[in-house]
Amino acid sequence: MLIAVPLTDIEFDKRLEECKTLGADIVELRVDMFENTQVDHVRKLIQKAHSAGLMTILTIRSEEEGGRKVENREGLFQELSPLSHYTDVELSSLSILSKVRDIVKAHNRKLIISYHNFSATPPKWILREVFRSARRWGADIIKIAVKANSYKDVAELLCIGKEEEGEKILISMGKIGSISRLAGFVFGSVISYAFIDKQVAEGQIHLEQMVKLRKLFYG
Amino acid sequence: MLIAVPLTDIEFDKRLEECKTLGADIVELRVDMFENTQVDHVRKLIQKAHSAGLMTILTIRSEEEGGRKVENREGLFQELSPLSHYTDVELSSLSILSKVRDIVKAHNRKLIISYHNFSATPPKWILREVFRSARRWGADIIKIAVKANSYKDVAELLCIGKEEEGEKILISMGKIGSISRLAGFVFGSVISYAFIDKQVAEGQIHLEQMVKLRKLFYG
Repeated sequence: MLIAVPLTDIEFDKRLEECKTLGADIVELRVDMFENTQVDHVRKLIQKAHSAGLMTILTIRSEEEGGRKVENREGLFQELSPLSHYTDVELSSLSILSKVRDIVKAHNRKLIISYHNFSATPPKWILREVFRSARRWGADIIKIAVKANSYKDVAELLCIGKEEEGEKILISMGKIGSISRLAGFVFGSVISYAFIDKQVAEGQIHLEQMVKLRKLFYG
Repeated sequence: MLIAVPLTDIEFDKRLEECKTLGADIVELRVDMFENTQVDHVRKLIQKAHSAGLMTILTIRSEEEGGRKVENREGLFQELSPLSHYTDVELSSLSILSKVRDIVKAHNRKLIISYHNFSATPPKWILREVFRSARRWGADIIKIAVKANSYKDVAELLCIGKEEEGEKILISMGKIGSISRLAGFVFGSVISYAFIDKQVAEGQIHLEQMVKLRKLFYG
């Protein structure tokens, strides 16, 4: 289980240092939440993360799936996906999906294709369709982040995830789904997202605690 | 999720106090591990636990499933099941199963029918047969404790458990299965066993930590 911490470009150096010290494996650059989204600026932060010994996920979340509008989104993927260990693009970002995939694959990087639902955990057949579709698009890792409104939702997501081939990231969002961030690993979830500064979403675990819990359960 | 702590009769008062202080809900009296298995002695300890505000599970584990031989096993069930909130009897203890069930039911107590496998997680169809059989015998709670030799084993047990109706206790034994003791709850597992003195089995979590984790994930 790898632990990733989403970061913006605010106080980046300080937070990167904290990620390193506390034991994160990856920083996720949430470029859609950056104050400065210029290619050179973002590139510099990717390089800083790598110099610190951390891997990176390049994420420029679309507005439809909870992100902020970024004018040069396609250009950023074009220039920076070749550098980043992972690139995360939404299954719903149809207009750029194949381009991003081709860049990522051409540079032997890993493509995360993601699907979000902030209000509910969809029925099984929809989740299975998401897996199937993301796989067809060439995902190396399929990320499913859906809101849990009951413990049953959490169990359902994890059990469907387990049945699917290949690497995935399974997140039941919300307080009820919190355990998915730790238990997902046994169902094939390869990356868990933790926070360092403040909890962005209910159910997230602090990095320091997540590292301890990983050691306790999977050490 | 209720937290139970298995206890013997060694330093019982001290340990009972600790269970109470640290936040356990239930003590499991592992009578097969008692130094003194006389009815009056065991009755006194059950009463002490109740006076301390803790519920009890009466367990006299059979030799076939990891217990120690107790001569007056049937008599103990006969006399003490009416007092204890829960009575745990093995699905394989065929010679006494219906008697124990009838006593427990007659006193409106809860019957846990348990199944153990200390070397492996059996295939799905066997686990499903265990559930079916225990249900037929009248289990209020079906307890499955099986050794996990891979993370896949853990996921399998939890997902099969989720599909089964009614209350259950799902434990993937061993270090690899440790997460089942915390995550089982979202799959319908109603009681988790923690330790206070020393870890009896690999993968068990200390009561103090378990109480904290329950608060963090399910609080």
